[in-house]
Amino acid sequence: MAAVITLTTDFQEDDGYVAAMKGVILSINPDVKLIDISHRIAPHDIKDAAFILSTVVSFFPSGTIHLVVVDPGVGTGRKAVILNIGTAYFVAPDNGVLSYIISEFKDSGLKAVTVSNTEYRRPEVSRTFHGRDIFAPAAAYLSLGIPMEMFGEPLGSLNTFPVPFPYQEADGGLTGEVLHIDSFGNLITNIRERNLPEGKLIVEIADRNIPGLSRSYQEGGRLLAIIGGSGYLEIALKEGNASKYLKAKTGVKIYVRPE
Amino acid sequence: MAAVITLTTDFQEDDGYVAAMKGVILSINPDVKLIDISHRIAPHDIKDAAFILSTVVSFFPSGTIHLVVVDPGVGTGRKAVILNIGTAYFVAPDNGVLSYIISEFKDSGLKAVTVSNTEYRRPEVSRTFHGRDIFAPAAAYLSLGIPMEMFGEPLGSLNTFPVPFPYQEADGGLTGEVLHIDSFGNLITNIRERNLPEGKLIVEIADRNIPGLSRSYQEGGRLLAIIGGSGYLEIALKEGNASKYLKAKTGVKIYVRPE
Amino acid sequence: MAAVITLTTDFQEDDGYVAAMKGVILSINPDVKLIDISHRIAPHDIKDAAFILSTVVSFFPSGTIHLVVVDPGVGTGRKAVILNIGTAYFVAPDNGVLSYIISEFKDSGLKAVTVSNTEYRRPEVSRTFHGRDIFAPAAAYLSLGIPMEMFGEPLGSLNTFPVPFPYQEADGGLTGEVLHIDSFGNLITNIRERNLPEGKLIVEIADRNIPGLSRSYQEGGRLLAIIGGSGYLEIALKEGNASKYLKAKTGVKIYVRPE
Repeated sequence: MAAVITLTTDFQEDDGYVAAMKGVILSINPDVKLIDISHRIAPHDIKDAAFILSTVVSFFPSGTIHLVVVDPGVGTGRKAVILNIGTAYFVAPDNGVLSYIISEFKDSGLKAVTVSNTEYRRPEVSRTFHGRDIFAPAAAYLSLGIPMEMFGEPLGSLNTFPVPFPYQEADGGLTGEVLHIDSFGNLITNIRERNLPEGKLIVEIADRNIPGLSRSYQEGGRLLAIIGGSGYLEIALKEGNASKYLKAKTGVKIYVRPE
Repeated sequence: MAAVITLTTDFQEDDGYVAAMKGVILSINPDVKLIDISHRIAPHDIKDAAFILSTVVSFFPSGTIHLVVVDPGVGTGRKAVILNIGTAYFVAPDNGVLSYIISEFKDSGLKAVTVSNTEYRRPEVSRTFHGRDIFAPAAAYLSLGIPMEMFGEPLGSLNTFPVPFPYQEADGGLTGEVLHIDSFGNLITNIRERNLPEGKLIVEIADRNIPGLSRSYQEGGRLLAIIGGSGYLEIALKEGNASKYLKAKTGVKIYVRPE
Repeated sequence: MAAVITLTTDFQEDDGYVAAMKGVILSINPDVKLIDISHRIAPHDIKDAAFILSTVVSFFPSGTIHLVVVDPGVGTGRKAVILNIGTAYFVAPDNGVLSYIISEFKDSGLKAVTVSNTEYRRPEVSRTFHGRDIFAPAAAYLSLGIPMEMFGEPLGSLNTFPVPFPYQEADGGLTGEVLHIDSFGNLITNIRERNLPEGKLIVEIADRNIPGLSRSYQEGGRLLAIIGGSGYLEIALKEGNASKYLKAKTGVKIYVRPE
């Protein structure tokens, strides 16, 4: 059974950057299985990469290595790190891109090390492409079974940004925000099904009121609220693009209250 | 020799949706080979997905499993199905996305079942992402050799839309239509080489007359007609984009007549 | 250890063209590893494909087979060829798409043959899709260990376009040009680190002067010059898109002089 390495970058797919990383990995471990998560993260959008990563990790086989290169600080002092959450590894810059993962698995005995051992990188390291020269080789050597302790020094904590949680209002309602717009234009919020007030609900967003939750994208009014595939409340437009329709972007507030 | 599962979706590649499906598949069958057909089907464009699928199926190894998730009706009563055409399997919603395949292989002793056995899906099934929770596991278990009969009840027929065939005019000409615009802007029609009248031809489309068929994209006039790679008559613009040039879209009529 | 075939095309990812090629390859060699370099080469942009290819080749395992299908001349007299540079094979149309590779490896005892043996292609060859019917099968049979001499006739030379090298000015400066715009909007030039004049430098491009080289994308002024991951001087905009900012495209001149 081959090890699995996933790749998440903001490199898009027009250049050879992702392929160079894959070539480096296969040169070290020819048997590894490479799975793309997304290379279409907006350039330098650490928060969006962090969110997308958090929605897929639990679906991969135990031991999967997630290589994440959204790295505007390449060449500065930011660290390269390996994070072990018990069921998966992450190889990434220490710039917050693992924030959701750390928030979610903080009780799982997280372990982290720097990627600083020069034995496990390319002999020549460029100033601008550590994805290829440092992160990819580290993921590949890790997939060969090299223990993470060999890669560098233990780290007590990693840099994270504050994961936005919804908060309870005095009137029993819940205020959240849009974390991500997906490619259908659905607005994915930070409100989970388990956070919702009981009973019939009204969802308020962008000066609209949406009564109740739908159970499919074809049920309810044209604009509808539904629990999406990752367990978050999302706002969708029937056979359309809710983000364009509402002119709503990441960060927009949402308010859910009992009817 | 590893089993092959192909993936066709309208998920685009900005989110982690495709990756989540792949993670689910690899968690069930770590040895399977995953091949993307396209994830850039326009959202909910069942017809275009159906067409693209039909152009690639015959090039894959016998026994390939084609996982197709263009599924606007997710969470409604639409069925999930497995179709066996003898040389390949399809795991898809029963919404017409297999129409071209069914039309083409209708004499091959098609067999279909519902995907309803809860043993072969994820333990928790979301309301909005059956691609990940039902279709992907079904494809993965099928790739392990589980007989299709185990997945559910036999189905006598599947939902299809009418595949648009060209029709013969009284004057000996043939009227067809554009089925698909490819990424070069070529207009792929539903007229096959074998349907063409004999002798020298005139192709009429969007108020233009194109004399004769070209044998390469560099032969003939600027606007040219040629038999494309899938055996269909297509209209191309030399070193350009015929769809933009003619402002022609899917559904536009084409007329072919002897000179 | 499975053979590796990479794929570079201008097919984009909206159609099934790339998938059809992969299906053909897997039907011939089910064990091969398929790695996409890019399918988002602009339609018919042979030069850009040639450049991107040259930036990734050295990162792949020895013996990798690079399948390149940017082929506006499909169906004309242009040859299909296999090029062996000792550490890698290329299967491509003889239209210049290997120009950078040939320029870089010209002293490595290059060997080339035509792909003309009908035994190693699909039984029916379309007029418009040799990628699927000729190039993909050739790459697949090559990956099975069929010697390249079996595919056709030896070729003494291949068609190339003149690779643009920078040139020394009388005043000690160096004039180069932009070869490629990457997806971050960085301008990748043809000036390599080893070509640079010594001492402190001024980089002139699009009527701007950039003093000195930065060592990261976050160092220096808003517009900065830096040695990129492929060893070429590149112009970047801090947290922005230099190409849009400067309205600069491929071919724009750059001038580097001592301060």
